[in-house]
Amino acid sequence: MCIFCKIVAGEIPSHKVYEDDDVLAFLDITPVNPGHTLVIPKHHYENLLDLPEAEAQKLLSVIKKIAPAIMGAVGAKGFNLGLNNGVSAGQVVGHVHFHIIPRLENDGRQLWHGGEYKEGEAEVILEKIKL
Amino acid sequence: MCIFCKIVAGEIPSHKVYEDDDVLAFLDITPVNPGHTLVIPKHHYENLLDLPEAEAQKLLSVIKKIAPAIMGAVGAKGFNLGLNNGVSAGQVVGHVHFHIIPRLENDGRQLWHGGEYKEGEAEVILEKIKL
Repeated sequence: MCIFCKIVAGEIPSHKVYEDDDVLAFLDITPVNPGHTLVIPKHHYENLLDLPEAEAQKLLSVIKKIAPAIMGAVGAKGFNLGLNNGVSAGQVVGHVHFHIIPRLENDGRQLWHGGEYKEGEAEVILEKIKL
Repeated sequence: MCIFCKIVAGEIPSHKVYEDDDVLAFLDITPVNPGHTLVIPKHHYENLLDLPEAEAQKLLSVIKKIAPAIMGAVGAKGFNLGLNNGVSAGQVVGHVHFHIIPRLENDGRQLWHGGEYKEGEAEVILEKIKL
């Protein structure tokens, strides 16, 4: 059983922010900022691509519900919503989870900087995207 | 009209990855990695909290559909899904958008490091989260 399934089962304690039949939200134990919350489906799915659409929609609904309350609790005016899909994207626990990270004034967090496409590069990528 | 509304209207060109009646996905012009894609509702909503749930669900459905194709195009095995909600979270364009950032081997991107709660701090925050 994965560590998040153990949290769902109550075998590992957590600081629960929200719970219903399908979704659990709890404080991340290594918070980027105070109030950093993880939102997971109770059933085990490895990542977003494995997650049935109905389950994904429940997660998003809970995120929209709890994010304002989390911001309010820590005095944040914004938040970053994030999901790391796959080991190469930094996914550590193989049970799909969204991060809600409240953002505080002067917390020093920086988004990744973007670059620019070379002439024609974007068009080549578009060609390769096979939907 | 905001810059993303102008892109939807065709007044500003974009590299379209996907389009349907409600959702547009296009290449970010300052990509963190090649293939970095923005997914937006065609109607203007400022952020995730303003976005009606049905619209949010459409975005997530499109994300699940196009993310594998984007990864395939650039040889990525994972991706980061992100949404910056509010200026203090780094939201630059006030029209809600998800980022799909394909992750490449050795691209040097680092997730934010987390800290630890002091004794009793998490409990105090939980108390303050008013759902």
